[in-house]
Amino acid sequence: MSHDGELPAETIRYGVEDEIATITFNRPERLNAFADDMASRYLGALRRADDDPAVRVIVITGAGRGFCAGADFTRLETLDLDEVRRRALAEPRDVAMRVNKPVIAAVNGAVAGIGLAHALMADVRFTVPDAKWTTAFAKIGLVAELGTAWLLTQLVGTGRALDLLLSARAITGTEAYEYGLAQFVSEPDSLATDVRAYARALAANDVHSLAELRRQVRLDAGRSFEQAWHDGYDRVFAALERGRFRDARTRVRDV
Amino acid sequence: MSHDGELPAETIRYGVEDEIATITFNRPERLNAFADDMASRYLGALRRADDDPAVRVIVITGAGRGFCAGADFTRLETLDLDEVRRRALAEPRDVAMRVNKPVIAAVNGAVAGIGLAHALMADVRFTVPDAKWTTAFAKIGLVAELGTAWLLTQLVGTGRALDLLLSARAITGTEAYEYGLAQFVSEPDSLATDVRAYARALAANDVHSLAELRRQVRLDAGRSFEQAWHDGYDRVFAALERGRFRDARTRVRDV
Amino acid sequence: MSHDGELPAETIRYGVEDEIATITFNRPERLNAFADDMASRYLGALRRADDDPAVRVIVITGAGRGFCAGADFTRLETLDLDEVRRRALAEPRDVAMRVNKPVIAAVNGAVAGIGLAHALMADVRFTVPDAKWTTAFAKIGLVAELGTAWLLTQLVGTGRALDLLLSARAITGTEAYEYGLAQFVSEPDSLATDVRAYARALAANDVHSLAELRRQVRLDAGRSFEQAWHDGYDRVFAALERGRFRDARTRVRDV
Repeated sequence: MSHDGELPAETIRYGVEDEIATITFNRPERLNAFADDMASRYLGALRRADDDPAVRVIVITGAGRGFCAGADFTRLETLDLDEVRRRALAEPRDVAMRVNKPVIAAVNGAVAGIGLAHALMADVRFTVPDAKWTTAFAKIGLVAELGTAWLLTQLVGTGRALDLLLSARAITGTEAYEYGLAQFVSEPDSLATDVRAYARALAANDVHSLAELRRQVRLDAGRSFEQAWHDGYDRVFAALERGRFRDARTRVRDV
Repeated sequence: MSHDGELPAETIRYGVEDEIATITFNRPERLNAFADDMASRYLGALRRADDDPAVRVIVITGAGRGFCAGADFTRLETLDLDEVRRRALAEPRDVAMRVNKPVIAAVNGAVAGIGLAHALMADVRFTVPDAKWTTAFAKIGLVAELGTAWLLTQLVGTGRALDLLLSARAITGTEAYEYGLAQFVSEPDSLATDVRAYARALAANDVHSLAELRRQVRLDAGRSFEQAWHDGYDRVFAALERGRFRDARTRVRDV
Repeated sequence: MSHDGELPAETIRYGVEDEIATITFNRPERLNAFADDMASRYLGALRRADDDPAVRVIVITGAGRGFCAGADFTRLETLDLDEVRRRALAEPRDVAMRVNKPVIAAVNGAVAGIGLAHALMADVRFTVPDAKWTTAFAKIGLVAELGTAWLLTQLVGTGRALDLLLSARAITGTEAYEYGLAQFVSEPDSLATDVRAYARALAANDVHSLAELRRQVRLDAGRSFEQAWHDGYDRVFAALERGRFRDARTRVRDV
């Protein structure tokens, strides 16, 4: 299912430094709008980072002024919907929800539509104050793609989720932070530094804990306390039996 | 199941202008407290707006100083509980959650008990700063009616929901906004204008998208990511196949 | 399953005044870190308060500078994991979620790990501005214990929950309030007074309502609107039939 040749392969950039893999949407002249074959490259980059034992944390961001302005509609004229569906089922696009390592989105600029979905599938979001955030779907006859309705509702509650989905209005990064869409706001010239410092702090934590904690939150959001509670027992005792608990004992005094 | 005659029919006012249906609780001398037969008229007005192709957005509000101060307890002396139960099952009161069009609550003043439930069933709430919001139930030996426990929890989280339900304290509109119960706050003399501008923006969006998005949020709140994800596929491809996506392409550049 | 003798029994203090039971974690020299046998005493104190008809509201707090700094790791050297598991299954630690009376946590200082879990199982949390809050788990190879992933997600949404779990960073009480972990913030010298005033207000409400409302929120968080709605009917009519509604009618005018 390679589509190399349609677009330059560097539409998705990939690099690793200090145990942090950075995946960059790289079509700055189009605000990094997703051409259809970028999806497969992006998902491949997430899997590559997840498989690489030298990587502990994954950062996604955009090149230039935008993060990701959504799907690239100008190319849809030549699009075969049956083919889109076949690909979507063959390579599910929720890889960011299923990797074992923390995913941080550094929202450096405009984020819309499926670009928003990719940002929301990350565990934690940083934003610059002036980034333009929008769901976009209702303006163009679409519905909430890639789990966006679930993700928004779990992040900011039903009221704000409905406001943002039904109005499709654009909000600023500052508002996205106030509403709870973004967990941190950084000035443009400190965004990369702030994200790196946060990623380094995560990388210093226990690798099994990180994998389990993000799984626990994804599973617990949308089930009953009783289910969460009983499932939790097994996970806690598995962690205790991994013995890491005892090894880490000396670090506890710093907590 | 008509109960005309018990109260003047204009206890629920109904009007349509500029594709916006406005439903007004109209017993201002009682802060629009719901007499039992008002429920049926209110639900009928919602269905009428939903069925009318000239309506794209529904606004609910109150006449006078209040929005809706809850059930009208002074009439309960003559109430037959078996009859109340029979009516509730025959005509479920969650119509606002099941219509296809966005519902905006313009909370112009006091909102309590089942008045609060009706406001929370709307998609988005505007409030004036001094409106008095309260659950009321715990002060009068009741429990959370009309889905209020679910609605509050999905809007503001379990901590604030429990605070408001257990204490039954009154909060201001400003606090309701800060807590996330209301999505917008407007001064009394600009409330109607602000609500209308927002409703007009919603009315400009795709009618199928609006219906689907509110359904997605209601369904996704309270289920797993996996269920939301798989259900989402079908909804997205149905939208793509409606062909609206292509028609709207030229508008995308404005996103 | 008595473990008296291992630690002085007063590691958990219990007192009742003005219909409010106060349970105090009392190992101030260790920031009230939970030795394993304190769990059983704490759970017993919760059951005692729940069974006592003179008690209407339960407050949990810590002695000295801390609330509860988590499990007491220094004693784990002598711990038998099989025994821990056996005890956990024999005496589930979610008693605070299952009592019939409101539980308020007065977070007077540092709260970490399972100390945080106990605070989050309360209905409502007060905090002092400088209290240090942290999940701690990811720093010591553990996973989210005692339902913490579910509780955090329901309180503050998935984004902030993941931030706090993955980073295990310490936040202040002021931040805990801003994020929605705590519902109220009080200066250290007014914390006890503020908590008592709030508890007194809850104690003045209907005892059946309080029990039902906290059950409704716990059940509704994590299920669909439809399930919540239908279950709600039965609860509402049971409340109406208890007749308390009529008795309270005269108080309604104050709502």
